[in-house]
Amino acid sequence: MGSDRFDAEVYRRRIAAATAATAKAGLAGLVISPGYDLRYLVGSRAQTFERLSALVLPVAGDPTIVVPRLELASLKQSAVADLGVAVRDWVDGDDPYALVAEALGGAPVAAAVTDSMPALHLLPLADVLGTLPVLATDVLRQLRMVKDAAEVDALRKAGAAIDRVHARVPEFLVPGRTEADVAADIAEAIVAEGHTEAAFVIVGSGPHGADPHHEYSDREIEVGDIVVVDIGGPYAPGYNSDSTRTYSIGEPSPEVAQQYSILQRAQQAAVDSVRPGVTAEEVDAAARDVLNEAGLGEYFVHRTGHGIGLSVHEEPYIVAGNDLPLQAGMAFSVEPGIYFPGRWGARIEDIVVVAEDGAQSVNHRPHELVVVPVNRD
Amino acid sequence: MGSDRFDAEVYRRRIAAATAATAKAGLAGLVISPGYDLRYLVGSRAQTFERLSALVLPVAGDPTIVVPRLELASLKQSAVADLGVAVRDWVDGDDPYALVAEALGGAPVAAAVTDSMPALHLLPLADVLGTLPVLATDVLRQLRMVKDAAEVDALRKAGAAIDRVHARVPEFLVPGRTEADVAADIAEAIVAEGHTEAAFVIVGSGPHGADPHHEYSDREIEVGDIVVVDIGGPYAPGYNSDSTRTYSIGEPSPEVAQQYSILQRAQQAAVDSVRPGVTAEEVDAAARDVLNEAGLGEYFVHRTGHGIGLSVHEEPYIVAGNDLPLQAGMAFSVEPGIYFPGRWGARIEDIVVVAEDGAQSVNHRPHELVVVPVNRD
Repeated sequence: MGSDRFDAEVYRRRIAAATAATAKAGLAGLVISPGYDLRYLVGSRAQTFERLSALVLPVAGDPTIVVPRLELASLKQSAVADLGVAVRDWVDGDDPYALVAEALGGAPVAAAVTDSMPALHLLPLADVLGTLPVLATDVLRQLRMVKDAAEVDALRKAGAAIDRVHARVPEFLVPGRTEADVAADIAEAIVAEGHTEAAFVIVGSGPHGADPHHEYSDREIEVGDIVVVDIGGPYAPGYNSDSTRTYSIGEPSPEVAQQYSILQRAQQAAVDSVRPGVTAEEVDAAARDVLNEAGLGEYFVHRTGHGIGLSVHEEPYIVAGNDLPLQAGMAFSVEPGIYFPGRWGARIEDIVVVAEDGAQSVNHRPHELVVVPVNRD
Repeated sequence: MGSDRFDAEVYRRRIAAATAATAKAGLAGLVISPGYDLRYLVGSRAQTFERLSALVLPVAGDPTIVVPRLELASLKQSAVADLGVAVRDWVDGDDPYALVAEALGGAPVAAAVTDSMPALHLLPLADVLGTLPVLATDVLRQLRMVKDAAEVDALRKAGAAIDRVHARVPEFLVPGRTEADVAADIAEAIVAEGHTEAAFVIVGSGPHGADPHHEYSDREIEVGDIVVVDIGGPYAPGYNSDSTRTYSIGEPSPEVAQQYSILQRAQQAAVDSVRPGVTAEEVDAAARDVLNEAGLGEYFVHRTGHGIGLSVHEEPYIVAGNDLPLQAGMAFSVEPGIYFPGRWGARIEDIVVVAEDGAQSVNHRPHELVVVPVNRD
């Protein structure tokens, strides 16, 4: 397990870059209440709701954190203490929104607020600022999408941990056990291999594998089942793993083996298409084209992937219609699947990071259908 | 364990009352995205973030839920299916905010939004509505504060469950074990006694008991410690327990016994002061007066209580400055404490429901300092 957060220098660079992007957008500053943006910018896991806590990054002026006095102690657990951020604490009866406006240089002022700021704070803040804020995503998108070296390292560690879990999955997949039994073992292994928690565990056996949104159920694993196992969670300092492998309980039928091999080629084609300048939708098309040519396109019913970092689903989305050119440092899943309703399904998912010369995967388990022997004594 | 939600009739009454309150406030409707208000109104535990899900309750027109097509299946697990709420599903590329505006009768329109609606949805919604919404709290406060019979019953069941946990706490409090060991046993007992989860566990031993915000630590319980145990969690269909008792490891000193007895009188005085028409701050003062008269007022450093229901902390707050008159059906904690920094602390907390003739507690464990014998073999 690593540290809860990065060195202060990482956050210092991010704050400088966020402030520069804010200036470029023609805004006076950013107002970031608890959530992923706050965690990204100062490493804070604060989750206050009723009372406003907010990092204020003015374009002209010093970074300031507005925080209820009650929360001063937990603030010291974030990087704020090392960053020289000014602290403006408040108690019941004070107007924290006025403190935000003051840190921005005075109202009326055009600012951006973090996507997760609740109406409870946004509406009174808008009132004090004198103008409706815009979404901080528009300013922070580029910064959050392109991972720095510390983030890529964190994603690699998370990837290695989930690889170790997949290596143990065959021992859990015993005929007669339920999907829920298997999911419980996997959740325990996810934590045992170093994750902070098991954020999601999908065990889709037989016909359940044909539903990409299935989690797990009381269905018993049977000999002959194809089982989709899609798992992951956060790994210190909070970057997520997310990897899918498909398992066959006993030898697969020739039809399954053949269709799976086409899926494997589709996933590889998408990975091979990744490089700076290629668009997100071109990566999606690379996987889809292989399946279409083999007559399996209609069974691939979701996008090819999603960005990943502090949150499991973030930009860039690898989907038709997204003409965003990839850049070195972007990280996302490549996870085509095929789903035959009422029968079976399969999916292969790795997280890749865009490098100058192509995709670098953080996952290294083999892509083949994993055949689980059924006569074990 | 009870059901995940109440009968549809409960939600039907709540929707009618919410709509009437909205009309009275001069608004065209309510827009409720996932959170406690949505759970209160239709029993939905939805937690969607990126894609808008929202219950729209227009004053003139039919209740409508706007929901991503992906979420239609989970919607069926809420009461929505039984309530005859119109469903407007949407897919990527549609404008869900326009669907909300349409359900409200067309923009421009003055609406209220749930407190937890994130900026991600509130800003584009405000744009489509053509006018800045207000907070739904102002409309729903009264309704959420005054519990109906089903809610009081749910709070009683949660209270009985946490009472059973407190009955087991002495067996966990063995000298030499750490606060964390004890907290782990308590968390397990909270679930074993029927809660959905252990939402919070405070084990404050010796000097740690003097910090009301302490959770638990690696400090070992010692003979002679006074230990504050403040615990609770949600109980199906989601209403919370919250109860504090204070334990003495071996016989307490005469000083501790005497000061604790004053705290006990303060807590009882606050409970005895509760009846419809009395204000929240008068209940706070009733506890504070007893401690002030005994010269202990300066050691009571927090408010006397908070409302409770689907969330652990909600209105009414029992605090100086809150002149809200109590009404039958309001439910809140009565939890004065005394804290001697570096030495010890104590707190007594029950949840009470306001009835016509006074407070009815949902907790029934004795209020005395619980002396845990230390020579057990």
